[in-house]
Amino acid sequence: MALTASLTQPRRASPFDHAYAVILAGGSGTRFWPLSRRKRPKQLLNLFGARTLLEETAARIRDLIPPERTYVFTNHRIRDEVRRQLRAVPGRQIVAEPASRNTAPTIGLAAHEILRHDPEGIMVVLPSDHVITKPAIFHRALAAGCNWAREPGRSVLIGLKPTCPETGYGYIRLGKLASGPRSLGIFQVLQFTEKPDSATARRYVRAGNYLWNGGMFIWRASTLIANLERLQPDLAAGLCRLAEAGGIRPEAALKRLYPRLANISIDYAVMEKAPDVFAVAADIGWSDVGSWAAAYELIGKDGAGNVRPPAAFLLDSRGNLIVSKGKFVAAVGVEDLVIVETEDALLVCARDHSQDVGKIVRELEEKGSEKLL
Amino acid sequence: MALTASLTQPRRASPFDHAYAVILAGGSGTRFWPLSRRKRPKQLLNLFGARTLLEETAARIRDLIPPERTYVFTNHRIRDEVRRQLRAVPGRQIVAEPASRNTAPTIGLAAHEILRHDPEGIMVVLPSDHVITKPAIFHRALAAGCNWAREPGRSVLIGLKPTCPETGYGYIRLGKLASGPRSLGIFQVLQFTEKPDSATARRYVRAGNYLWNGGMFIWRASTLIANLERLQPDLAAGLCRLAEAGGIRPEAALKRLYPRLANISIDYAVMEKAPDVFAVAADIGWSDVGSWAAAYELIGKDGAGNVRPPAAFLLDSRGNLIVSKGKFVAAVGVEDLVIVETEDALLVCARDHSQDVGKIVRELEEKGSEKLL
Repeated sequence: MALTASLTQPRRASPFDHAYAVILAGGSGTRFWPLSRRKRPKQLLNLFGARTLLEETAARIRDLIPPERTYVFTNHRIRDEVRRQLRAVPGRQIVAEPASRNTAPTIGLAAHEILRHDPEGIMVVLPSDHVITKPAIFHRALAAGCNWAREPGRSVLIGLKPTCPETGYGYIRLGKLASGPRSLGIFQVLQFTEKPDSATARRYVRAGNYLWNGGMFIWRASTLIANLERLQPDLAAGLCRLAEAGGIRPEAALKRLYPRLANISIDYAVMEKAPDVFAVAADIGWSDVGSWAAAYELIGKDGAGNVRPPAAFLLDSRGNLIVSKGKFVAAVGVEDLVIVETEDALLVCARDHSQDVGKIVRELEEKGSEKLL
Repeated sequence: MALTASLTQPRRASPFDHAYAVILAGGSGTRFWPLSRRKRPKQLLNLFGARTLLEETAARIRDLIPPERTYVFTNHRIRDEVRRQLRAVPGRQIVAEPASRNTAPTIGLAAHEILRHDPEGIMVVLPSDHVITKPAIFHRALAAGCNWAREPGRSVLIGLKPTCPETGYGYIRLGKLASGPRSLGIFQVLQFTEKPDSATARRYVRAGNYLWNGGMFIWRASTLIANLERLQPDLAAGLCRLAEAGGIRPEAALKRLYPRLANISIDYAVMEKAPDVFAVAADIGWSDVGSWAAAYELIGKDGAGNVRPPAAFLLDSRGNLIVSKGKFVAAVGVEDLVIVETEDALLVCARDHSQDVGKIVRELEEKGSEKLL
């Protein structure tokens, strides 16, 4: 009966009709060295199980937005691996940018590409190197965001309740509830603050009406382009020229025109200045996994709080994160360490010093130790 | 003039006339895992520079006792490597014992071999896995010991001033000064205590008239055999049969007869029971390097107390001992660790837990992880 009904009744509109996923997979983080490398950045690592963060990102939205409506932007160094990990996405929709130009040019390029196919297209921009532990709530947040962003002129981002006064993130100040229940509501956004100082961050967290900007955005492609034309006319013009030359292909035009675009983030280029910016406030269990310490918190541990290869031998050791590529590891009398062993490098780091791992990479860059980067 | 005089005057007697070195190189310590392995025990490691402990042992006595009067006892697993490290010693004098029978059979076998060549032979028995940082004083101690042991019936050992109440060593109680200055004197030995409990060890160290028994012995070969005959008649008889069958060669006789000998230490078999036992009390800068922590104390450190490969990158790290076979190592925010990386294994150990490294080896033995042993 139900089946017959669904076949005969008119199809109910989905929040994801005309929705296109734009996955940003060009990051080149240094914080998971020595596991992360230039050719194997964080999004390509399977820190938390069988799937990499990129694969998780794609899997999370697959049921909402089909792979044919998914675009992935990355760089030449890792494009082949990105394609390997995302076989369901058509290869021509996995784009290697010829130069690194931050998020605004990437997203603008994606908007033109989507518009070419679908004037009603709605873009869902998603980083590929974050963890989301509550996918069902994430789905509801995306649905609410897509519904709200269907109205031309509106920009929507997913806002995340801050769990600590992190100074490395962007904060947004919320205004009135515009729609929905408070637990999954659409709020006006009144102000952006990028990387506040520690006292300010503490104040924001205490105040309760600030959220983290997690870099997940939803607009009509046409809304974004209109905002770019008004707020970043040079960039908008450059993107138009690129679109006229073919957009994401042929590669020759991309190679010639893309590097001329302004190196600017979408937050700074558009979001901070646009009218009608809204946030979906949702507890989606988000983490950007910004350090080995953050990864440790997210991984299953044994009774002594160790993350460890099954074959490792641990004696009087607690709270360690141990990653080894096959080598037998023994730990004796050590606590709260990060121990990561790869083919060519070994890191031993106090867990509460893991924010300094990037300094190793900078040192290697200065020394020109290409093989270790 | 001086040269002419030395050619024409009668040669002055040396304390090392008729002296034979007997180097014990059969040890199979587990405390330097993963660097030490069955096929590469401690004495074959170059923990402290270019030379291995075995090479250091041989070099230390080379000027006193020539290689032709040096015997080395080891096992089949490492004989080739011992020969490689001690090229100056005639190959036939580097003997692989067909079974592990502790020190008394080894030393008895050496005594027969020496007597076969030199009825006046004096044996200087030396372990090969210790460190001696004051070789000049060591030489004087050996000279004093050889002079004193020349008198038939006397047994001499090198006694070491205890620096801590170590419970893993043997202690000897000194009686009267028999000869020489107190700083490098020959003392009567009144009593042996093997591995005292902690309270007893502390009492011994406080008392001042106790020394560590460092396993270095000097006797006439004939004195040792006489003592064995009186104190260990079965072992002495077995050694006689072996000597009659050829001693250290042919291998077939050794293989047949050696395993039948009693498994017993020279301390227990002879020294604790013999008359006329003396000790040379000398500050020779001795260490048996019984753990990674002990090795750390003996190795040159950088300003932050780290022992490290030059290429390693250390940040906010102090007091670490880092050994790596070529792999790049980065340490961040870690203190007082032992980090040892080999081709197939990695140890990360709190320095003050390094006495537990042997437990890893026992675990590997129980698991049958032959490759890691």
